[in-house]
Amino acid sequence: MSKLPVVAVTPGEPAGIGPDLCLRLIRQQHDCHVVLIADPQLLQQRAALLDLPLDLALWSGRPDKQARTYLAPVTADQATTVGQLNPANASYVLKTLERAVTGCLAAEFDALVTGPVHKGIINDAGIPFTGHTEFLAQRSGAEQPVMLLTCPGLRVALATIHLPLAQVSRHITRPHLQRILEVLHHDLRSRFAIPDPTILVCGLNPHAGEGGHLGREEIDVIGPVIEQQQAQGRRVLGPVPADTAFLPAQLAKVDAVLAMYHDQGLPVIKHHDFAHAVNVTLGLPFIRTSVDHGTALQLAGTGQADPSSLLAALQLAVQLAQHTAKAVMRP
Amino acid sequence: MSKLPVVAVTPGEPAGIGPDLCLRLIRQQHDCHVVLIADPQLLQQRAALLDLPLDLALWSGRPDKQARTYLAPVTADQATTVGQLNPANASYVLKTLERAVTGCLAAEFDALVTGPVHKGIINDAGIPFTGHTEFLAQRSGAEQPVMLLTCPGLRVALATIHLPLAQVSRHITRPHLQRILEVLHHDLRSRFAIPDPTILVCGLNPHAGEGGHLGREEIDVIGPVIEQQQAQGRRVLGPVPADTAFLPAQLAKVDAVLAMYHDQGLPVIKHHDFAHAVNVTLGLPFIRTSVDHGTALQLAGTGQADPSSLLAALQLAVQLAQHTAKAVMRP
Repeated sequence: MSKLPVVAVTPGEPAGIGPDLCLRLIRQQHDCHVVLIADPQLLQQRAALLDLPLDLALWSGRPDKQARTYLAPVTADQATTVGQLNPANASYVLKTLERAVTGCLAAEFDALVTGPVHKGIINDAGIPFTGHTEFLAQRSGAEQPVMLLTCPGLRVALATIHLPLAQVSRHITRPHLQRILEVLHHDLRSRFAIPDPTILVCGLNPHAGEGGHLGREEIDVIGPVIEQQQAQGRRVLGPVPADTAFLPAQLAKVDAVLAMYHDQGLPVIKHHDFAHAVNVTLGLPFIRTSVDHGTALQLAGTGQADPSSLLAALQLAVQLAQHTAKAVMRP
Repeated sequence: MSKLPVVAVTPGEPAGIGPDLCLRLIRQQHDCHVVLIADPQLLQQRAALLDLPLDLALWSGRPDKQARTYLAPVTADQATTVGQLNPANASYVLKTLERAVTGCLAAEFDALVTGPVHKGIINDAGIPFTGHTEFLAQRSGAEQPVMLLTCPGLRVALATIHLPLAQVSRHITRPHLQRILEVLHHDLRSRFAIPDPTILVCGLNPHAGEGGHLGREEIDVIGPVIEQQQAQGRRVLGPVPADTAFLPAQLAKVDAVLAMYHDQGLPVIKHHDFAHAVNVTLGLPFIRTSVDHGTALQLAGTGQADPSSLLAALQLAVQLAQHTAKAVMRP
């Protein structure tokens, strides 16, 4: 059997650019086997529309010597019209993810790379869904998933993810932050091969609360958790104001920044390097990376979608799989 | 009388780098008269420490032909020890601002540039103080100040400023957002000389609420206010997710981004170009710009403080004063 990692790829929302990007991805050579988990007809139609070849072997559960790109078929409920969301296919999207999770847990796949889904249409179909991260955690029994965005020179993890802003403060508790920091520290070591990672923690409030004048979460919650981590000998620093945490001179000294919520951390990294930003879920029993962009319905089928982020996600998945394999082999 | 603008400069916290930066500023030639509002002894001591010349004329209320740099003296209560905060000097810091406001309102000064203050020490001295922006607004009778950060290629305004995060949502109301957008639109025209400005408005919640699944403020408050602005013929766009608002391709199409709160907007601009970021207060009856950094107590008196932001703040103040003078002269 080949020693190349086997990476499952789910295209995500069928009406969006996910299938387009996958079709472009499989035209390139990668340091892995790629298994697309998708509806065969959908891929055929999109390939015809984009005038791209569709050269996939049927996935048998293990790679063979001849091929590097495979299809693990999951049938859609209805044919897809490019650019048009259809709640009838929401369950198909989730079935591709279920298939991927099953394969990852069974070590059939060494990693999962996901294309963009449309949360709204899944919810409109009557299926509660707040995001890939939460879904994959629930399906794999992971207690605390952590969302990390990474691009060259910058890693940003989030203490909370898909919450209305008004609810963020009440979710920043000591036990929650402790769990987040445990996962982040563990996975920076095991997945990213950073033996003694330095983590910079943002405050929740403007100016990290300005000594309690602009909020007390830093004093009551975040600061004590950081001290506890430091007492364990870990390089966990802060809390620092978010608008100084991301200064390039600061970033050069740390391995990851922990932001307290979605829009405190993600605007910076997407501004910095959108094309190469990759979303990684930590805390899962398997490796999962993802594009950092949406479904871009209006670009689907036009040939204009940029596959950079999916490519970066695949490359990072391969790298993490190699680190993880080495870590497992160590006594 | 000279036609060069007269710019008042307050060094801010006396124990911090503000005085150092002012001493470096006055060694350069500028397209304006500079009036430092500060304690004479403080400046003398700091100049001696830094081995810098102190060449200032006493400000008489109007510029003369010989000089371009002046001192309007305001006496400190106690001598300052470099790098050591002293609540006894909090009232001195505010007196320098009071002097500046009086002069700006009397047209003695054409603009005000402020150095960094330390909010904590002013509050510790028993004086409630949330920031320059709020203080200057209150003292000049401005109803709605708006904080804008600007650097080459990026302008970010804030709908709320120095609020604990847990209180942000309840401050995002229709009347408040309307006032903010009125001021922003007005001042981009009158101060920045942009005849028909395009303003991109961020959502409050992650993904701008994802169609109501992650919060309803976009549907109930932000969206309707934007529509109302559009009905007046203004180029006000959104609400868009904050993590797409700051993509370089988006920014190229707009004159300013309106973020809903402090840490949604400021981390991006400070990451992007900290050295040249300038804080501008809109909605005041005069021009006010400021450095975007803090007091950096540990750098005070060392000669290592970087004057780039103060210089950028002065240059922008001069530019805004010239635009405003032209706007006033128009019939």
